[in-house]
Amino acid sequence: MRLHVPTPLRWGDLDAYGHVNNARMLGLLEEARIQAFWVNDDGTAEHAVGASTAVIDATPGSSTLSLIARQEVEYLAPIPYQRLPLDIELWIGNLGGASLEVCYEVFSPVGVEPRVLYTRAATTIVLVDAATERPRRITAVERDAWTPYLEAPISFRRR
Amino acid sequence: MRLHVPTPLRWGDLDAYGHVNNARMLGLLEEARIQAFWVNDDGTAEHAVGASTAVIDATPGSSTLSLIARQEVEYLAPIPYQRLPLDIELWIGNLGGASLEVCYEVFSPVGVEPRVLYTRAATTIVLVDAATERPRRITAVERDAWTPYLEAPISFRRR
Amino acid sequence: MRLHVPTPLRWGDLDAYGHVNNARMLGLLEEARIQAFWVNDDGTAEHAVGASTAVIDATPGSSTLSLIARQEVEYLAPIPYQRLPLDIELWIGNLGGASLEVCYEVFSPVGVEPRVLYTRAATTIVLVDAATERPRRITAVERDAWTPYLEAPISFRRR
Amino acid sequence: MRLHVPTPLRWGDLDAYGHVNNARMLGLLEEARIQAFWVNDDGTAEHAVGASTAVIDATPGSSTLSLIARQEVEYLAPIPYQRLPLDIELWIGNLGGASLEVCYEVFSPVGVEPRVLYTRAATTIVLVDAATERPRRITAVERDAWTPYLEAPISFRRR
Repeated sequence: MRLHVPTPLRWGDLDAYGHVNNARMLGLLEEARIQAFWVNDDGTAEHAVGASTAVIDATPGSSTLSLIARQEVEYLAPIPYQRLPLDIELWIGNLGGASLEVCYEVFSPVGVEPRVLYTRAATTIVLVDAATERPRRITAVERDAWTPYLEAPISFRRR
Repeated sequence: MRLHVPTPLRWGDLDAYGHVNNARMLGLLEEARIQAFWVNDDGTAEHAVGASTAVIDATPGSSTLSLIARQEVEYLAPIPYQRLPLDIELWIGNLGGASLEVCYEVFSPVGVEPRVLYTRAATTIVLVDAATERPRRITAVERDAWTPYLEAPISFRRR
Repeated sequence: MRLHVPTPLRWGDLDAYGHVNNARMLGLLEEARIQAFWVNDDGTAEHAVGASTAVIDATPGSSTLSLIARQEVEYLAPIPYQRLPLDIELWIGNLGGASLEVCYEVFSPVGVEPRVLYTRAATTIVLVDAATERPRRITAVERDAWTPYLEAPISFRRR
Repeated sequence: MRLHVPTPLRWGDLDAYGHVNNARMLGLLEEARIQAFWVNDDGTAEHAVGASTAVIDATPGSSTLSLIARQEVEYLAPIPYQRLPLDIELWIGNLGGASLEVCYEVFSPVGVEPRVLYTRAATTIVLVDAATERPRRITAVERDAWTPYLEAPISFRRR
């Protein structure tokens, strides 16, 4: 199952070519990921866009850091500025012992025809204990929360 | 009359202090301004958040450039990352011959109590003819569109 | 006395107009300020570009936070991407009890003729005790270190 | 043969974790790439850091656009803010018909011991004719200029 995260652009995401900058795209994926797996300040967990209890916590002072170990991105079509949010599909391509792979397909806004696939990407995240600064295992609660979003990882075209 | 522009934060807007970075704030104001005074690619004009026909055009290739001549910002309270969009109030503090001043008050998200005023700011924009690269006068159509949003400019505390 | 801080641009500072973005300019000023008033991790203080012992500390975990209370910027000429670093002149326009005003004039790279003044700006910084989160007074050591760089503040043209 | 491109950090590259943000890293690689393969406005070509005549042109209005088709990044160690520029080693891992792969290893600043390898990355660039918006072949002049920097591409650990 995939999450659909509406992710607004900013005009400032454009570079001198007039397209969304390739580095800024990683900032958009970061924001979609955080919106998808948000934990509230009071400790309750919820999705912005789903209904599970997934628990990647991006708040400062949390006991777990989500460190990025690897990213792979294919840019398939240039992205112009547009007022409607991009439609980012997001799922989990791999659930390891202390790490997971988040996969993305970035589409044109919902309702805009024809639908364009702009970007495909994957991020490997390692869960790190903030106190010890060492990787820590994915808990049973986390694994249960994330398993519904497990699908086949992306097969990148250019390798 | 003021426009209310809901403006989403990104986690990447935070700096190493864990607050929205002061430079990033100008990017948020830029985005609110563009959302408020958007022109479609087909030449029709509309507000994202209002109903007039205001016409600051940020699309590449447009015949008018909106150049920033001046900005003044007061940071009143640090802004944490939050999932709900900030509530940016936006109006026009001054309508000159070829320039205008856009004023902003940046508030905590709608519905969050107590309401906090984070930032107050003003931007002076000069309309420039893209072909000649010289300032060009505000047209009668633009003046009619913007006049309803004309209010007293901000009186900054620290000067 | 003014400090001269060579501050490199990045191509990514350009926006869709092909000029350095107005919000990014504040990031450049931030970097020039930190380079000018840097404190090493071992507690020794030094200038990147001067020789005093000024002590604005930007390292995470430091006992003083430098909070931005106010900024004012005049953009006088558009800035193209260029490989040589901008020449940012930096001085202190005001030394208060717990706050100071840093002033900047941003010039074209050293050696490039004619010399262009791109931007003038001022930033009000409040020194905040990280533990109590309240403003704390400028110390005698800091005041002695900063006094040589005290000059008249900027008189902005457009107010 | 590899180019060594000294690439300065900015304090604003840090995120709320106090490390250089993963998306910002792509902006650093972009800047190192442009510094390495710069073309002057008068059409002459030179390296900032080498001595060949390589010709990726990032100036607006140039006849060739350098579009990013793919990026792969491994983050091996978190990067703190530091005043000295990072030492980015840069070479060409593949020279195709209309595309090339730029490879990077990002090290701690020259002279800082022990030397740390922070990041390894590869970017696939397609040369696009600005007029037709279609890929165009690498010229003989370009191929001669780039061939000295051809080395084995990166073998990424996590795949």
